[in-house]
Amino acid sequence: MKFSMERAALLKAVSQAQSVVERRNTIPILANVLIEAEGDTIQFRATDLDIEVVDKGPGMVEKAGATTVAAVTLHEIIRKLPDGALVTLSDDTMSGRLTVEAGRSNFTLATLPKEDFPVMASSEYASNFSAPAPVLRRLFDKSKFAISTEETRYYLNGVYMHVAEADGGRVLRCVATDGHRLARIDADLPAGAEAMPGVIVPRKTVGELRKLLDDDEMQIAVSVSETKVRFATPEITLTSKVIDGTFPDYSRVIPSGNTRRLEVDASDFAKAVDRVATVSSERSRAVKLALEEDRLILSVNAPDNGSAEEELAVAYDDEPLEIGFNAKYLLEIASQVDRENAVFLFNSAADPTLMREGNDTSAVYVVMPMRV
Amino acid sequence: MKFSMERAALLKAVSQAQSVVERRNTIPILANVLIEAEGDTIQFRATDLDIEVVDKGPGMVEKAGATTVAAVTLHEIIRKLPDGALVTLSDDTMSGRLTVEAGRSNFTLATLPKEDFPVMASSEYASNFSAPAPVLRRLFDKSKFAISTEETRYYLNGVYMHVAEADGGRVLRCVATDGHRLARIDADLPAGAEAMPGVIVPRKTVGELRKLLDDDEMQIAVSVSETKVRFATPEITLTSKVIDGTFPDYSRVIPSGNTRRLEVDASDFAKAVDRVATVSSERSRAVKLALEEDRLILSVNAPDNGSAEEELAVAYDDEPLEIGFNAKYLLEIASQVDRENAVFLFNSAADPTLMREGNDTSAVYVVMPMRV
Repeated sequence: MKFSMERAALLKAVSQAQSVVERRNTIPILANVLIEAEGDTIQFRATDLDIEVVDKGPGMVEKAGATTVAAVTLHEIIRKLPDGALVTLSDDTMSGRLTVEAGRSNFTLATLPKEDFPVMASSEYASNFSAPAPVLRRLFDKSKFAISTEETRYYLNGVYMHVAEADGGRVLRCVATDGHRLARIDADLPAGAEAMPGVIVPRKTVGELRKLLDDDEMQIAVSVSETKVRFATPEITLTSKVIDGTFPDYSRVIPSGNTRRLEVDASDFAKAVDRVATVSSERSRAVKLALEEDRLILSVNAPDNGSAEEELAVAYDDEPLEIGFNAKYLLEIASQVDRENAVFLFNSAADPTLMREGNDTSAVYVVMPMRV
Repeated sequence: MKFSMERAALLKAVSQAQSVVERRNTIPILANVLIEAEGDTIQFRATDLDIEVVDKGPGMVEKAGATTVAAVTLHEIIRKLPDGALVTLSDDTMSGRLTVEAGRSNFTLATLPKEDFPVMASSEYASNFSAPAPVLRRLFDKSKFAISTEETRYYLNGVYMHVAEADGGRVLRCVATDGHRLARIDADLPAGAEAMPGVIVPRKTVGELRKLLDDDEMQIAVSVSETKVRFATPEITLTSKVIDGTFPDYSRVIPSGNTRRLEVDASDFAKAVDRVATVSSERSRAVKLALEEDRLILSVNAPDNGSAEEELAVAYDDEPLEIGFNAKYLLEIASQVDRENAVFLFNSAADPTLMREGNDTSAVYVVMPMRV
């Protein structure tokens, strides 16, 4: 194998690959990236056995072939080469070495045989559709904060992507929850997605996927089976196993009868919560909301540290209510609001509270109160 | 005590104070800042018993007095208050509470009696002089990277500031070393500094001092005794104990007979070192320099990772030489060079190497080679 590639294109391709590679590996080949040169295309493939990313870029191939080399080291080398450099990679099968040359720099890296590289088995996908990058970005960005990190409840360690019934018809929906808070985000159902099985997309996959979604103009090809999900742009294909478990019936958790309506500027609200939480105890982070007509008083009382109180002008015309929350949860859901006011719907101090942006029901958040 | 202060001025004063406070404290009062309001000035004082910082700012004092309160919590609160807010602090001696008010925010914090706050004893200083901020900044910025972190050699855990003889007469000199590399930086001797005793300024003090030196126009008042050093601007006074030990005779370490002269662009050199070091083993970080006439070949050979080689055009007309260094040490000294080329003076592969910027002997660096 021998090919040359412009440094920027090479860096982009190798970056995506090395980010999938786990830093601590007991299986040496999993630290490597599989490089395949053929025609005028160079293909880079990396995997952690759960996720596989394949990244293609244009190159001048002098001799077709394939080999594998340490992904992180290769990435570091390319990153440090001067901008605009032409980089030549060639492998010597006899010595088992890959040479990287650019200008007066010359590197030799150990390789492992391409035959040892675990290529993910291809699958039959039950559903194939295409969605604009900004739509997928919204679905995952607004839900991922609620993913659970508790390993015992592994079926909550991802975002549940599925087709659901909403007021306006069927939607593509992403839900995540850790039992304390929940996010439910809807988007128009793309053509071809009707028969999509519901899948739990693991946290790491959600993170890797994010890098494919930056370009507003990009259409993402999505393929889903019972066991796998695939997201692809013309250059990058990200394939991931999905979590083998059943996502709980979240609909029971979302309150439908909450009638006490508070409307507040989300940014003012977040700043006030953040301020009063300064004195809250490290463990509970409890903040109390006291509601009266058009008035919200946020307060914290932590005997060790002190106390804090702040008043906000809000829209509220129901009976007085006192309810407590974890400040971190309030800040996270408030930060999802970016266009209109935050609307909170309460029932009692012991019941789950619902939050949405204005009257938009395509993104709703539920947060459990705590005793204060 | 009761006073009001503009948020930005208050934040600045409290920032400097809280940064001296150690995060883990067994003595509760050391987590606090002593606030004293008198006339139209508010004074903030914090200490870790080795360093004391006193910061003054203008305020409207309604009732003179003093109290102490948790420095980090107060800083967090002020930081989160809106820009431009007028902040009122008042203490209630009966309840032992300090109230912080701004707009509709209201905080109450626990206080500790001002009498318990350990104020550093004032000293007689043997020497008082004044130096421009950029001069002190250069002395400490260019030497601090070489400070040792080995606690057993506590007398190397700081920068040795003293008066020394140089070619052009007496100078104010800062030296730091960890036994592997050494930095020696000279500045013109300020008037009044002639009788200054040599002192070892601790690493933490060097860090805190840095914040006083950002303003190019500022003159810094420096006072030095056998046991303490003080740096002061009109607003901030930083007093620190010095390390109670004897700095070793560093002059023996600085080679004077090295004649093999290499001149190289410092930035090109650093980039090349950084690149070849990518494949070096984590532990040794060894890079080999091979010198021939006007040619430098940098190389690394790490059996586990691979090998790397890069050639640089340099000025060198002595006999061929091969010498090895820790890549990290080379990168650190090369990054000190910012005006001219880096000039290395070698003797043999086993002797200390000297580095300076062009022919400027007011900043010289020594680095020990390693076997490769």
